[in-house]
Amino acid sequence: MTSRQAERLLADTPAIADAHFRAEAEPYDPVSRPGGYLNLGTAENRLLWDLVGERLKGLGEFTEAAARYAPLHGTEVLRERIAALLSATFRGPLAAGEVVVISGATGALDALATVLCDPGETIVVPAPYYGAFDTDLAGRSGARLWPAPLPAAAGFRLTAGAVDRALTEAKRAGAVVRAVALSSPSNPMGEVTGPGTLAELLDVVRAHDVDLISDEIYAHAVFGPRAFTSALDPAVNREWAERTHVVWGFAKDFALPGWKAGVLCSHAPRVLAAARALAYFAPVSTVTQDLLAALLADPDWVRGFLAEGRRRLAEGWAHAAGQLDAHGIPYVPAEAGFSTWVDLRRWLPDPEAAHGPAGFAAEERLWRELLDAARVNILPGAVFHSPQPGWFRLCHTVGAPLVAEAVRRLAALPHAAAEREQPTTRIGDRP
Amino acid sequence: MTSRQAERLLADTPAIADAHFRAEAEPYDPVSRPGGYLNLGTAENRLLWDLVGERLKGLGEFTEAAARYAPLHGTEVLRERIAALLSATFRGPLAAGEVVVISGATGALDALATVLCDPGETIVVPAPYYGAFDTDLAGRSGARLWPAPLPAAAGFRLTAGAVDRALTEAKRAGAVVRAVALSSPSNPMGEVTGPGTLAELLDVVRAHDVDLISDEIYAHAVFGPRAFTSALDPAVNREWAERTHVVWGFAKDFALPGWKAGVLCSHAPRVLAAARALAYFAPVSTVTQDLLAALLADPDWVRGFLAEGRRRLAEGWAHAAGQLDAHGIPYVPAEAGFSTWVDLRRWLPDPEAAHGPAGFAAEERLWRELLDAARVNILPGAVFHSPQPGWFRLCHTVGAPLVAEAVRRLAALPHAAAEREQPTTRIGDRP
Repeated sequence: MTSRQAERLLADTPAIADAHFRAEAEPYDPVSRPGGYLNLGTAENRLLWDLVGERLKGLGEFTEAAARYAPLHGTEVLRERIAALLSATFRGPLAAGEVVVISGATGALDALATVLCDPGETIVVPAPYYGAFDTDLAGRSGARLWPAPLPAAAGFRLTAGAVDRALTEAKRAGAVVRAVALSSPSNPMGEVTGPGTLAELLDVVRAHDVDLISDEIYAHAVFGPRAFTSALDPAVNREWAERTHVVWGFAKDFALPGWKAGVLCSHAPRVLAAARALAYFAPVSTVTQDLLAALLADPDWVRGFLAEGRRRLAEGWAHAAGQLDAHGIPYVPAEAGFSTWVDLRRWLPDPEAAHGPAGFAAEERLWRELLDAARVNILPGAVFHSPQPGWFRLCHTVGAPLVAEAVRRLAALPHAAAEREQPTTRIGDRP
Repeated sequence: MTSRQAERLLADTPAIADAHFRAEAEPYDPVSRPGGYLNLGTAENRLLWDLVGERLKGLGEFTEAAARYAPLHGTEVLRERIAALLSATFRGPLAAGEVVVISGATGALDALATVLCDPGETIVVPAPYYGAFDTDLAGRSGARLWPAPLPAAAGFRLTAGAVDRALTEAKRAGAVVRAVALSSPSNPMGEVTGPGTLAELLDVVRAHDVDLISDEIYAHAVFGPRAFTSALDPAVNREWAERTHVVWGFAKDFALPGWKAGVLCSHAPRVLAAARALAYFAPVSTVTQDLLAALLADPDWVRGFLAEGRRRLAEGWAHAAGQLDAHGIPYVPAEAGFSTWVDLRRWLPDPEAAHGPAGFAAEERLWRELLDAARVNILPGAVFHSPQPGWFRLCHTVGAPLVAEAVRRLAALPHAAAEREQPTTRIGDRP
């Protein structure tokens, strides 16, 4: 006999996890498995292990003290070092007491949604958005997500106006809206949210009296000319700092997704207290925390490592963009993150007519075909609640050879062949 | 603005965590801090680090594969090794697919309560019970706990009759009861639940059509003459195996409480599927899982280690019992676990009259006095929902010198002095 809570969890079965593990089980190798899967569906950074692995060498000294009970919202030393790192990133003070360490960015998002919303209440999310928000923000908390569609014609750029309209519509439809959530830099598009847009967005959430959840897990993965600005940067956020909550983690910037170390930052004492109470249910092991604290111990190493990470990301993205250009596949240019938002609308049958459900059904068939026939795993736009069918997220952080092979296979699909002579159009080109 | 869910979490502030960290901040040392705190309040096993630490040496080799995404309900290798270990412990087959690894036994209990109960539904728990059940089982799931009092006169022994009566009373009072939960071996009393009692208990839960949650985190910590029997042992549980769910972890048997590695075992496919969905929100880091898998790699080492652990526990308990006897402090004899249930009723003013709220208020004053004046942290019975005031849980796994000093300080309390001539009575002596 299982509860209604359990039934809701069971109904939420993500096909994308299956695709990930299927692709990982038979990976491509140019020599031993040239027909193997290319997994460009998962936002893992495989460009950094030489640096991280080298740094971790010799750090695995296990002490009795580290095996014992520790504060379940993060050890003091780890929270202090995270606070020091993020104070620089946010360009504003963040204390160790304003940091909660929790099992994964998922845990941090779940905690924020639970703290801000009761079941049935609403969080507005600019779309396309990181598909796992559906589970992370709503799966356990009982909150509901309301997409704020960003127009394809403008390259899916975030605007405060789109969020304002969605907030108004949601309220008009009777929703009790408690927060706006976004990933910044954005996922899947890889857009940096500039200080002007952020200031406008903060005006909108303030006018609607809702909190802002800013998932800044790609904060140090900005490689374009525009610098990262945190939603907690005092230069853009003076009035709403106690209603703004930031999520970060070690999965992306430190290429340690398996270590499940999420971070929640807030200046709101009650939100922090409730998040600490929730961290009791999802703490990070002390052995993991001690290794992460050691990784952050030398600020010079961290600075150099993050700079080298940005350099490699820029190089990787430039290579991926070059491959897409060479094969005439359009995309939204990225300036941050691990992915590029690729336009495969021409691969759909009759793209002009394919809007709404029919378009997304065609998109899903194309995704299955890419996975089954081309053995390329890239995620379809429906996963990201794309307002328009035919877009896919391609993660370029798997190394140049795999990206080249994946783009080659994409371009070799039968549908693509007929279209290849058409001129390439870049959508929403950015400075 | 925080949700009602958050308010409920904030209302639940455990004073015992404060006592733990206060005691740990200024620990006793015979030379450098002879007046320091003695923390016998926390069920940590400090008798095993030489073996565990030695075994962990050289295991900290961090690989890129181990830093990447893995199944969030536990890696295949760790679940296989846990299943092999627990199949022997349960004396019945357990498959890797019937194991969910999750952040701490807390995570496992929270998952089970969430899967079995909707908010407001009830779990019956024989009392005295492990105090953290209040948070673990009810804090996040919204379930309610209904104590089934075990009579002090019979040494607080578990009986199926006491559980049956509580189930009947709870239902009569309108509660929707979904499960019975217990720790087996019991915490705080350290009683082994024998096969006869287990079989009767299974008959009762079956008659009431409710699930059984058996927290067997002390499964390998049995040092008395009676062997451990799991609630999933096929010899006692044929009819109700799909409605019986076991919690285990590495905190007690492997002395790694900070590593937060909890385990949920079940033969029920839907419970397992929902628990896997919940583990998504509270996964254990791959680096921790790899170390635990390495720790279990050699079954011979594991067997020898667990046997030595039992030997040291027996020795530690015998020493603690000897100290209590020597100072005339009564207790319930233990046969498992890390603690002994100590009778300080004579320390309360007018113990005969001190029942109900007045008795528990006196018990709390005594606890504060023990902590502030004697600087001994042992937890009062109220934390364990003791049906009778004046009982305390004393953890004896901190090493003989600390136990001796703690018992010396207890006996030296002013209230105790006048009583010391009275004969010692052992409550509920067991074979």
